[in-house]
Order: sequence, then C-alpha cells, then structure tokens
Amino acid sequence: MDRLVRLAAADMGGVDRLITERMQSDVPVIPALAEHLIAAGGKRLRPLLTVAAARLAGSDNDACLKLAASVEFIHTATLLHDDVVDGSQLRRGKVAAHLIWGAAQSVLVGDFLFARAFELMVETDSMKALAILARASRVIAEGEVLQLTRSHDLNLSQAIYLDIIAAKTAELFAAASEAGAVSAGVDPARSEALRAYGLNLGLAFQLADDALDYGGATETLGKNAGDDFREGKATLPLLLAIARSGPREAEFWERAIGRREQTEADFRRARELIIGSGALDATLDLASDYADKAKAALALFPANDWREALESLADFAVSRRA
Amino acid sequence: MDRLVRLAAADMGGVDRLITERMQSDVPVIPALAEHLIAAGGKRLRPLLTVAAARLAGSDNDACLKLAASVEFIHTATLLHDDVVDGSQLRRGKVAAHLIWGAAQSVLVGDFLFARAFELMVETDSMKALAILARASRVIAEGEVLQLTRSHDLNLSQAIYLDIIAAKTAELFAAASEAGAVSAGVDPARSEALRAYGLNLGLAFQLADDALDYGGATETLGKNAGDDFREGKATLPLLLAIARSGPREAEFWERAIGRREQTEADFRRARELIIGSGALDATLDLASDYADKAKAALALFPANDWREALESLADFAVSRRA
Repeated sequence: MDRLVRLAAADMGGVDRLITERMQSDVPVIPALAEHLIAAGGKRLRPLLTVAAARLAGSDNDACLKLAASVEFIHTATLLHDDVVDGSQLRRGKVAAHLIWGAAQSVLVGDFLFARAFELMVETDSMKALAILARASRVIAEGEVLQLTRSHDLNLSQAIYLDIIAAKTAELFAAASEAGAVSAGVDPARSEALRAYGLNLGLAFQLADDALDYGGATETLGKNAGDDFREGKATLPLLLAIARSGPREAEFWERAIGRREQTEADFRRARELIIGSGALDATLDLASDYADKAKAALALFPANDWREALESLADFAVSRRA
Repeated sequence: MDRLVRLAAADMGGVDRLITERMQSDVPVIPALAEHLIAAGGKRLRPLLTVAAARLAGSDNDACLKLAASVEFIHTATLLHDDVVDGSQLRRGKVAAHLIWGAAQSVLVGDFLFARAFELMVETDSMKALAILARASRVIAEGEVLQLTRSHDLNLSQAIYLDIIAAKTAELFAAASEAGAVSAGVDPARSEALRAYGLNLGLAFQLADDALDYGGATETLGKNAGDDFREGKATLPLLLAIARSGPREAEFWERAIGRREQTEADFRRARELIIGSGALDATLDLASDYADKAKAALALFPANDWREALESLADFAVSRRA
C-alpha cells in the first residue's frame, strides 16, 4: 500500500484537487457534508487503482485523474447511502454524516456526488469508461439490495455471499482498474486483465474486512469492531462458524443473529466461536487465494514499479490481521 | 396533453417497452418496487418531451426513445428518494413505495434506476445528451437540498422559491427537451430553444402544481390536497398570502408553518386566506406567463403537428384549476 501511495503521489495530488474542486456547490450544505466524509481520508484505494492501472497500461496523459475522482465520488455516494440504509454510527473513525445532517441530506448529497461523477466522466470524452462505471454503479445497487434482503439469513450459501460482495465491493474495484486501463487506450486483453486484478483484489479486501470485524480492534477498522455482528450481518466468518456449530451453538446463533436478541457478552462469545472453529482463518485463507489470483492477472504486464506496487497492494489487502 | 399523447403514441409504446425491459434485474425486489411506481402511470410527461422535441427537431431514428426512457428513470429515481426524504404517504394515488418496502430499499432502487439511466444513455453514444442529463441530475440534487434547508422559511423570497423549482423540477423538463433536440442533430439555436421551452414549461407546471395543493381535490392530484401545507412547505401561494397578511394572520402562519403546530381546521383556513388574498390567482397568473414564454420559444420551428401539440401542452399545464 505505502509503495503504491508513494509512486502515485503526484497523480493523487491531482485527484485530490479535482475532488475538492468538483464537490463544491452554491448550496453550502453539500460541500460541508461531502467534506466531512472525504476529508476524513479513507485510503483512496479505488482512485489509486484507476491511476495505477492507467500508468501500468502506459497512459501518459491526465484523463485517468478525472476518472479516478469520478470513482471516488461514486464510492462516497454509496457510503453515504449505505450508512443511511444500515443506520451505521461511525465511518472512517468519525460520526456518520446522517447523524449530523440527517438521513435526507445524506441521501441527496449522495445523489449529487453520483451525478457529479458522471459530469466528470463526460469531460474525459471516453464512452468506454462511462459504460464501465455506469454498469458498476448499477451492479453495486443490485448488490446492496441483495445484501439487504438476504443478510440476516443464517443459511446463506457461500456462493451467494460471494455474489453479494462481488457486486457491492469488488465490482467497483474491477471497474476502477478497467476504466484506468481503457483511458490508456490499451488492448482488450490488457484491460480485461486489469479488470480481473481489481475484481480479485476487491474480493480479497472485503473478505479480510469481514474477518477483521471479528479479529480486529476498533482503531484499526475506522468503525466499531463487532458492527457486522450487532447488525446481524451474515458475513463469511459467521456463516462458516454456523456451519461448523453443534446444537448448543446453533441456538446461540439463532437467538443472536436470527432474532437479533443480543446481550453485551454475545459479541465476545461469537468471536470465540468464530476463531475457535477456524472460521476466521478459513475466511482469511480464501482472501489470500483471491489476492494470489489478483497478482497472477498482472502477468501480461512488464515487471516495472507499477506492477510491483499493485502486487504488494494485493499482499497488503490480506495482511491486516491485527 | 391528449393531443401530444396521441401524436407520440407509437414512440411512447417503444419507450414503455424499454422501461419495462431495463428495469429488470436478477434481484427480484428491484423490478417489483420499480414497477409499483412506474406502472402507477403518471403522465410520462418528461419522456414525452424528449420524444416530441426530437421529432419537432427532425429526428427520424430511435435514439430519442432510449433517452426518453433514461429521463423517466432519472425522474423515477428522484421520486423514490424524495418520498423518503419528505416522508410522503401517497404517490400517483398509491401508497408510497418506502411505506411498503422500507426507506432503505427505496433509496437503493432509486440508485439502481439512476445508474440504469446512464447505461441506457451510453447506448445512444451521444456524449452531448449524457452531458445534458448528468448536469440535470446534479442540479436536481442541489435543488432538493436547497429546498430541504429553506422550505420552512416563511420569509423565503419569490426569487429563491423560483430558483428551487427551477432546479428541482424545471431543469429536468429543460434537459429532457434539449436531449431530444440534440439526438436529432439540430443546430445550437434550436436545441437552446427547446431547452427554453422545457424550462418555462417546467416552471409553469410546478407553479400550477403548488397552486393545486390549495385549490384542487385529492383525486386530481394523485397526492393528498394540503400535503405541502401539512409538511410546512413554503410554496409560492403560501409565501404570497403571508406577504399579504395582517398581524392576526401572521400569528396563524407562524404557528401552523413556522412551528408546524397544526389543528384539523387549519388547512381550510389556510386555503381561505390563500384564495381570499388573491395569492392563488397570482401564482396561476405567473404560471401562465411561463407557459406563454414556453410557447414563444417554439417560434423557430415550422408550425406542424408536433409544435401545435407542444403549444397545447403548455396551455394544459396551467389549465388544471379544478
């Protein structure tokens, strides 16, 4: 991660300037609310992917900066809407925007950022990039709806869980990389390879994130450890632990997740069951497999600094075990 | 209105087929929720504008049908989000979607439709149309936020009220017409003229709608008469009546709108004051002025069936006094 951040520093400076410039509006609430979330930082992982993919694919112009800013706007819009939908309290270590400005403003500022993203894409005059990011925006919404309808289902299969995280998380990683590649005018084999890199990286990243919710500390997460558990979200560590449970544990899961009747001590017990059953390690192993696939997808490209930085990003995605 | 509907019947059949086809998804909640709102009908006024503008501007292909369906998707997305934001109970004479599926699903299905709109636009391969509709989507969001922050302000000026309705309503009418014109490959003077037609029609339409909330019956509106009053929305009929009030009425407005402490009888009193003070007629007169401007903007075009139908639509927009 650090390596990629250093390599892309100048480009990302340009992306940050675009983000600040294009989140402005004559309606003062809009930049105030957007700034709250955007200035809180986050890793800017998705726009980094756009820039790195473009540079690895040989881009020598600045079209990728506008696409990268668009990608961050789409991501920020989905975060604003998600936090309303989930009733989340914390985001990037700060109080969630909807708790300060209200759900209505969060929904509308999300809409603003989403539209701004498309205005920025239009400026790049790349219909291919527009197609990729419009599709990704639609797939993300489908993933969110699917998650909302299925997320408290204790019998959710691993396949459907993977469908959900592919749509709600990995699709934007894939589209961010692919759009960067396309802005470099690269051939289809190479833009497909960078799409595959992003998709597998996104899966690895989300699996590691879902594991961290049971294995990490609140400071590392930027959200409260145990949030998924308290929301009763059927993520893979939980699903695997449930599948490995005996009848006594089954009753516990049914109460705490199925009926969401939780006591203070329940998260600790869930964590013990998830770690003790090997479900946490199994989740992290699967994440590592996807990280390996991501790295393998880069084989088409010359072994330069950009490729090495993207490889080390895949390692980073699954190394956050603390 | 009827005249335009008849003239555009074949084109609108194609638009309806596109709408039904493109609101499908592998996630079943999405078409179910979208269908609830879209099948309830509505006037399909905005896509009608796109088709009519394209045909008046000489289009002889079907690009305008995809743009028209995109326009309806953008409109439907904003309605879903608005009803969540305003907590509205009724839409198009049916229970609002968020009361059936929940606010979360309404927000996410709105996002889905918004993204679908951009996917459809990409298919037309018109970067100009994309620029127009991306901008409109952003302006609408700005208008909604502005309305939310200022709508309970009893001292709202007529100028800011007009800014709000220009952004939240008239902009999409303008963009719908302009995008249709652009799809016909018309010169800038003519696409600007059709944009001006749409903008003025949209202002006339919203002013008449705001007047109807005090002058109409629930069956005519497809929403409850008095909704604006009960939500404490500072629309023009109310603002003009307040400006014309003596001290006794001022106290009434301050209580019922400013503090929103309302009794059952208050809506009737508000209606009497708004009609009695001439505020309702003044609002409708202003609407008529905009309708006249809309018609005047069509002077550049040959006096054919399409132009006459658009002229009669402007008359219709301000004739709904019942």
